Amino acid sequence: MSSETSDHRRLIIAGSGIAGLTAAIYAARSNLAPLVLEGDEPGGQLTLTTDVENYPGFPDGVGGTELVNDMKAQAKQFGAEIEHGVVTDLDDETRPFEVELNTGDTYTADAVIAASGASARTLGIPGEDDLMGFGVSTCATCDGAFFRGEDMVVVGGGDAAFEEADFLTRFADTVYLVHRREEFRAEDYWIDRLMDKVDDGDVEIMRNTELLEVHGSQEEGVDHVTLAENESGHPSEKLDDPETEQFDFDVGAVFVAIGHTPNTDYLQDTGVELDDEGYIDTLGGDGGDQTATGVEGLFAAGDVVDHHYQQAITAGGMGCKAAIDADDYLEREVPAESEAEAAAEADD
Amino acid sequence: MSSETSDHRRLIIAGSGIAGLTAAIYAARSNLAPLVLEGDEPGGQLTLTTDVENYPGFPDGVGGTELVNDMKAQAKQFGAEIEHGVVTDLDDETRPFEVELNTGDTYTADAVIAASGASARTLGIPGEDDLMGFGVSTCATCDGAFFRGEDMVVVGGGDAAFEEADFLTRFADTVYLVHRREEFRAEDYWIDRLMDKVDDGDVEIMRNTELLEVHGSQEEGVDHVTLAENESGHPSEKLDDPETEQFDFDVGAVFVAIGHTPNTDYLQDTGVELDDEGYIDTLGGDGGDQTATGVEGLFAAGDVVDHHYQQAITAGGMGCKAAIDADDYLEREVPAESEAEAAAEADD
Repeated sequence: MSSETSDHRRLIIAGSGIAGLTAAIYAARSNLAPLVLEGDEPGGQLTLTTDVENYPGFPDGVGGTELVNDMKAQAKQFGAEIEHGVVTDLDDETRPFEVELNTGDTYTADAVIAASGASARTLGIPGEDDLMGFGVSTCATCDGAFFRGEDMVVVGGGDAAFEEADFLTRFADTVYLVHRREEFRAEDYWIDRLMDKVDDGDVEIMRNTELLEVHGSQEEGVDHVTLAENESGHPSEKLDDPETEQFDFDVGAVFVAIGHTPNTDYLQDTGVELDDEGYIDTLGGDGGDQTATGVEGLFAAGDVVDHHYQQAITAGGMGCKAAIDADDYLEREVPAESEAEAAAEADD
Repeated sequence: MSSETSDHRRLIIAGSGIAGLTAAIYAARSNLAPLVLEGDEPGGQLTLTTDVENYPGFPDGVGGTELVNDMKAQAKQFGAEIEHGVVTDLDDETRPFEVELNTGDTYTADAVIAASGASARTLGIPGEDDLMGFGVSTCATCDGAFFRGEDMVVVGGGDAAFEEADFLTRFADTVYLVHRREEFRAEDYWIDRLMDKVDDGDVEIMRNTELLEVHGSQEEGVDHVTLAENESGHPSEKLDDPETEQFDFDVGAVFVAIGHTPNTDYLQDTGVELDDEGYIDTLGGDGGDQTATGVEGLFAAGDVVDHHYQQAITAGGMGCKAAIDADDYLEREVPAESEAEAAAEADD
């Protein structure tokens, strides 16, 4: 990758979810004209939500996609540019950074904000990969309507699983929520709400149960699943236990809602510190530079950092901090004037 | 304060700014029916801003008061209650907490979120208190338009002072920025922007100068101010120095923009750790409990914690985290059932 063919930017923001777009709004208002790279899940996780009720400022709720599009318009209006591309390689040993995209484009950048989010985790069971997109899905909002009138399985026990199960009742004959333990991690709000649907007969809850295999074909979709149940929980770890019951179960669709993995592959060979699950370690604390990573000039925000709260408003808060931190860094370390001079010298 | 006359709440949120209201939205959705205490600056600092352009989700901007009111409606809709009152005393040695308000009301609460914000600092000079609201103001956005065509003084040297001075040029004959030192703390962005207005003749900068007194009456407003100047800075500390010049100066309004003080008086005698300026120390880190303070069950969010970023979206992010942290704490330490049992036992 040669710098002759690279466009140069003051700031590149990898990711166009709430964190990336909030960073873009703030950075654009600081005259950094940031380039936002929009990956394969444009707008991030929030676009998978039909109706966002807890983003502050919208008492009647707001569509996930609508909110994201409004933020894009807001960022563009102040001078942000949004372009399709996933970072495949980031060279953090040179300054400016060298950034390579899956589109073949390369850029140099004085600062980078990693806001590349997290993607849905899968179970890794037979049939799942094969039938992904053919009856198996990680996104009820995207795919629920294709299976109108069918029985559906949702796998998981957190907010996402409950929200998906709730949403799917509008299409499904019956929604079966399959959870490997007895207790749920989901908010009371969601548990109460889903229990009402259990009372109505629209939802059945299968505790201490796991999916072992998905059966079907790409032509015909999902035919049935194999389940295991053990009342002490985690049945797939106890298949030899006589208390574990295995059985087949007819369903037309499977929705996997068991959490997310951060998109940080492109940071593996950099100085950015990642935890065991791949989440980025940031400086934190209570002063400035809270979003700083182990690499000077590289900041991080959103689901790529936060494995705990993972809300739109918390991602936005971090995105804002990352833009302010990046701006402070640029003003301190790579002032616009000296950068112009450096470029002029390099041209000599 | 006796518990017989106290209403009990699962969660009390002190403050109705962006942090408090976001906490209320999240806590209400967790069925905590939080009580939000609205102090003397209802809605917090954001209501002092006419047009908020950088809160993500509003490409055309949104009024500060409108945004706050929408958040209130959203919180109420999920079951939050909002009541006027400032916490004057918080007993953190009993559980539930005992909370005393300036209205005379007292409450007990299983958990508390401190989101009481920060208030504008004042100079403490003669005339300032008397004329506050009658020509002296800490909020250009609120009061600037009342003094159309007048000469105005802005006191301060940080971002806020520069932003206020810049804003006031739309109303003022001339804006005089009075700063006690030679150097400014404000960002280059603001300094450059204001220097352009100096070139245009709309702003004059008075360095190494301090306000000693404001003269006028509540009937007639501000008539003039007494200033002191000493080219080595901090003239008010050098009034006997022959190099210090004192003089009167005719102006129609005085805007004091010398920073904020966190509203944490009620936490002085608790186990909550405050820094030298009174900001609350929270746990931070990258897992849960980021908003935890030194007192179990007491969480903090917003400008009462953050002395650096101080944006609506960052305050919202913290408020959300505080609600999630409080909910986790309550579920773990004071489950609703055992609480009901305890109440029943207490009634025996």
